[in-house]
Amino acid sequence: MNTLGDKWSFTSFGESHGAAVGGVLDGVPSGLHIDIDMIRNELARRSGRGMPGVSGRAQREADEVEWLSGVLDEGDGPVTLGTPVAFLLRNRDARPEDYEELRHTLRPGHADGTYLAKYGIRDWRGGGRASARETAARVVAGGIARQVLAGRGITIRAELVQVGEETDPARFEALLQAVQAAGDSVGGIIRCVVTGLPAGMGEPVFDKLQSHLAFAMLSINACKGFDYGTGFAGVALRGSEANRYSGGLAGGITDGTDLVFRTVFKPTPSISRPQTLPDGSTLRIRGRHDVCVAVRAVPVVEAMTALVLADFLE
Amino acid sequence: MNTLGDKWSFTSFGESHGAAVGGVLDGVPSGLHIDIDMIRNELARRSGRGMPGVSGRAQREADEVEWLSGVLDEGDGPVTLGTPVAFLLRNRDARPEDYEELRHTLRPGHADGTYLAKYGIRDWRGGGRASARETAARVVAGGIARQVLAGRGITIRAELVQVGEETDPARFEALLQAVQAAGDSVGGIIRCVVTGLPAGMGEPVFDKLQSHLAFAMLSINACKGFDYGTGFAGVALRGSEANRYSGGLAGGITDGTDLVFRTVFKPTPSISRPQTLPDGSTLRIRGRHDVCVAVRAVPVVEAMTALVLADFLE
Amino acid sequence: MNTLGDKWSFTSFGESHGAAVGGVLDGVPSGLHIDIDMIRNELARRSGRGMPGVSGRAQREADEVEWLSGVLDEGDGPVTLGTPVAFLLRNRDARPEDYEELRHTLRPGHADGTYLAKYGIRDWRGGGRASARETAARVVAGGIARQVLAGRGITIRAELVQVGEETDPARFEALLQAVQAAGDSVGGIIRCVVTGLPAGMGEPVFDKLQSHLAFAMLSINACKGFDYGTGFAGVALRGSEANRYSGGLAGGITDGTDLVFRTVFKPTPSISRPQTLPDGSTLRIRGRHDVCVAVRAVPVVEAMTALVLADFLE
Amino acid sequence: MNTLGDKWSFTSFGESHGAAVGGVLDGVPSGLHIDIDMIRNELARRSGRGMPGVSGRAQREADEVEWLSGVLDEGDGPVTLGTPVAFLLRNRDARPEDYEELRHTLRPGHADGTYLAKYGIRDWRGGGRASARETAARVVAGGIARQVLAGRGITIRAELVQVGEETDPARFEALLQAVQAAGDSVGGIIRCVVTGLPAGMGEPVFDKLQSHLAFAMLSINACKGFDYGTGFAGVALRGSEANRYSGGLAGGITDGTDLVFRTVFKPTPSISRPQTLPDGSTLRIRGRHDVCVAVRAVPVVEAMTALVLADFLE
Repeated sequence: MNTLGDKWSFTSFGESHGAAVGGVLDGVPSGLHIDIDMIRNELARRSGRGMPGVSGRAQREADEVEWLSGVLDEGDGPVTLGTPVAFLLRNRDARPEDYEELRHTLRPGHADGTYLAKYGIRDWRGGGRASARETAARVVAGGIARQVLAGRGITIRAELVQVGEETDPARFEALLQAVQAAGDSVGGIIRCVVTGLPAGMGEPVFDKLQSHLAFAMLSINACKGFDYGTGFAGVALRGSEANRYSGGLAGGITDGTDLVFRTVFKPTPSISRPQTLPDGSTLRIRGRHDVCVAVRAVPVVEAMTALVLADFLE
Repeated sequence: MNTLGDKWSFTSFGESHGAAVGGVLDGVPSGLHIDIDMIRNELARRSGRGMPGVSGRAQREADEVEWLSGVLDEGDGPVTLGTPVAFLLRNRDARPEDYEELRHTLRPGHADGTYLAKYGIRDWRGGGRASARETAARVVAGGIARQVLAGRGITIRAELVQVGEETDPARFEALLQAVQAAGDSVGGIIRCVVTGLPAGMGEPVFDKLQSHLAFAMLSINACKGFDYGTGFAGVALRGSEANRYSGGLAGGITDGTDLVFRTVFKPTPSISRPQTLPDGSTLRIRGRHDVCVAVRAVPVVEAMTALVLADFLE
Repeated sequence: MNTLGDKWSFTSFGESHGAAVGGVLDGVPSGLHIDIDMIRNELARRSGRGMPGVSGRAQREADEVEWLSGVLDEGDGPVTLGTPVAFLLRNRDARPEDYEELRHTLRPGHADGTYLAKYGIRDWRGGGRASARETAARVVAGGIARQVLAGRGITIRAELVQVGEETDPARFEALLQAVQAAGDSVGGIIRCVVTGLPAGMGEPVFDKLQSHLAFAMLSINACKGFDYGTGFAGVALRGSEANRYSGGLAGGITDGTDLVFRTVFKPTPSISRPQTLPDGSTLRIRGRHDVCVAVRAVPVVEAMTALVLADFLE
Repeated sequence: MNTLGDKWSFTSFGESHGAAVGGVLDGVPSGLHIDIDMIRNELARRSGRGMPGVSGRAQREADEVEWLSGVLDEGDGPVTLGTPVAFLLRNRDARPEDYEELRHTLRPGHADGTYLAKYGIRDWRGGGRASARETAARVVAGGIARQVLAGRGITIRAELVQVGEETDPARFEALLQAVQAAGDSVGGIIRCVVTGLPAGMGEPVFDKLQSHLAFAMLSINACKGFDYGTGFAGVALRGSEANRYSGGLAGGITDGTDLVFRTVFKPTPSISRPQTLPDGSTLRIRGRHDVCVAVRAVPVVEAMTALVLADFLE
């Protein structure tokens, strides 16, 4: 349930308003000098500092990774031992009191109701495990994976290519501000390109590389879809055209060309505008929320891609 | 690599032009009377008999399931024992000689090249494991899963909602004939609706139900994408709109409403039109090929959905 | 439930008196020329032909492997494709009528009662999945694994070192005949030595090589125990003595010395002597039964060892 | 590598002389009130306080569990949320300086050499992952499992039944003191009995309950063997005798009688007596060491049994 991958196995834990979020990354090769600055930088990208339409809490998250195991630091930084790398990020800015009035309310578009149906209990102090906070641990683990991939010449680069109906990046900020002013939120599409992959990565039939990528992307909160290569738009192509472009994969296995995929995120479900609940009452969610979760999902998409690819490295 | 699922575990085997394709389905509850006619019917749907634009070989496939284990038949049909259900489908219509000239040719849009890169050998007598033939075993296993789900009141119904640029089903046949006449092929989009799901199915974080569905769909040959609920089109919605529609899932867990997803298939890569290969030579693929793989993928989408859902049954 | 291993993944199927037993072996490297004679020879060892105290049915089993997939034979024998190797062994000598009177009887020392408790149904025509017949598929799969290991210089050799209270192999046959004459059965201990293992095989903590070996051995019917290195006898040693002998492993990882382990098998539960059942009635099991299952378990122990080791090969 | 179990999945982390050891336990049902005192008591048993022949460090370990996630404490103690329970135990008494002289020495009977062969690096500040310290996390996780099992009426009780050649518990202490006085160590056998198991637990063929128990036991450091029911001693029985005693299992599935198994531990490899190394030099290991690891392994055997059984609960 909270573990992803086989050879690179990442176990995630932590509620958004509990003591900490964190993870255990098993399968990291020994002898890797972890670049702490790179991971700190990825966490800063995820927190969205300085980006338009990002929530107050996220802006304040100045996450410091506490390394619990799997590394030996003899003065020149942590070096991996080949044993499980465990780490945590304290939840410094937890404000359960902000959620007191949500103790008995199931927010629309959130997992409050399904968690309650499944477990008979939920952590009402925020989104619990279903919070965006959980992705911080993914970014740390994915950062380590990216460092290993970079050592093999593999690079991953995701970017926002659509916000709402807008496809011109120059106009994203204006749209985000307008939506924010309306107390609403909007969706986004992220495109990811992986370069430097050798031919032959991936397994046929039920462990196709695209299956694992789709699995990982759909595991990110608010993600509603994945396509690669010609994707959904390719429905209108003829075979004589489509045969010229693979998107990096054939039969589930890399062919040595760039791997290209997209993933779509729905609008942030937490919005400031009043919403009418099924019982007719009106819900107002306090605080400042992300206008577009896709903005901060960019480094998460990269991190998840890295974890999937690392699992397929020989 | 060739096994899918955990509690319901399906292992698939077989090359398209070897002795047989088949599978082993582990985790089927004991005491199930298998409805053989239903499975025969699903195989007929998959073979596309009477459908427009379907290949000659598929039309001739009159698959009979040979049950090898896991069932006890004391006169009134096979009843499951709780042990692994193994079955095979003989490849009666294998014509390796049709492929003789492809022994040294890597077909565009196929997995010929990536299999060769990965394994250093490939079964040149057809697509091997990467053939559409492999899906016959999925349909048998999925048929058993659907019977168990039906006993819980869960029904799965997929349909073709787009062929090429055409979204009006009344015009699909005309388009398929036109494309076939041009010796070409075209893509398609399948929409699938699951009704009768109880709330609380699925697991949070890395075993979200949508992750498993996406994984299973992307494992079908020629599938290029998956989305659910508001999907890719939902990028243009505002949160105040998107919050009203879940697509059946929140936080990876069913909420008791209908589950709705789509999946896109690229045009059939085997086309009759001459194609220019990278070395400048011209390839003509013999035989009659599916014009649109999505046509015959409909029962495969349903079968894979059934296998995924059965794995989450309590 | 019926699948063992990760990189080398073996799925077994088949009831003893159904159509066939067989298996699917996934993860076999491509390009291996399978030595059919070696596998035929292993099956003959398992059938116990010419050995003392072996049952009538086993002696008659002249198993021929039917290869269903994963190999390409272009005239000089089957060569693996890297795809799943599926095979079956028909149950030619099934005699359900021998079991007719056992339809409603739960035999002492057998799994009849626990299968019924678990599944509410059982295949009364013999032991079903809990029959020794099931090990034939293990021997085929293990034979392929041994061929790959042999190519790396790794050899596996098991032998019977104790029968009943007897530890002198010269006297095993006499004891077996005496026990057979008494209509009874007797236990045995098998010792297995693996040579040629490189240092560094195995994984720490929960995937220790000895854990996987113990798991595999205890999965063989009638196996009641496993030990390695100094084993149970080592309880009486002092550390200063025990430190001199590793049994091939330290911390779950091979150290480059010979791997040595033992496994114990209980007496065959099917015996000719009348047995009193819990309800006071008397049971007489027909037919001729193995006097000591350990005799025919020797090639099964080797096969399982091979499957475990192959799963740890880099 | 560092994860055990499927439905109850336990991931362990931590080096003996790093920051902490700990774990993530996934699959714990929601709504369980964790009995903290019981877990504290199990940790005290594992530390061996007041027991004969136990090392200095172990005696000083006063472990306090720090709960990181998966529980909600609203004043009356931690209640599980159904999400992963993560916890850690700080390594308060780490004394790397004690190991400074072992930085370049591979201790006999330890995993120092195999870890170095496998990873090319090792945590020389103690045993790293191969330290007995790692079992503290198992005891915490196993304690939670035992609480769930107790709620189903299942109890687990292990005890030391042999120390060295001594089988009379009244004389264990005297033997331990004599061995300690000689600067040496000695092995032990633990017997474990599980009562209250329903019939039908366990899975046939490759997931037999005894396979999982053997796997778990052999994953404990210094464990050299496992047997159940008639075990190794049963080799000398006749079938007519052995059929009367199942040890709680038939065909891998519980039969409703008590489950009884044994496990053997080699003598502690760290001894005070000087040892001659392969290069002819003499090694003296400082500090006070356990005379018999089996003494403190008793609660670890119980904890691992609980984790295995919890994984099979419906």
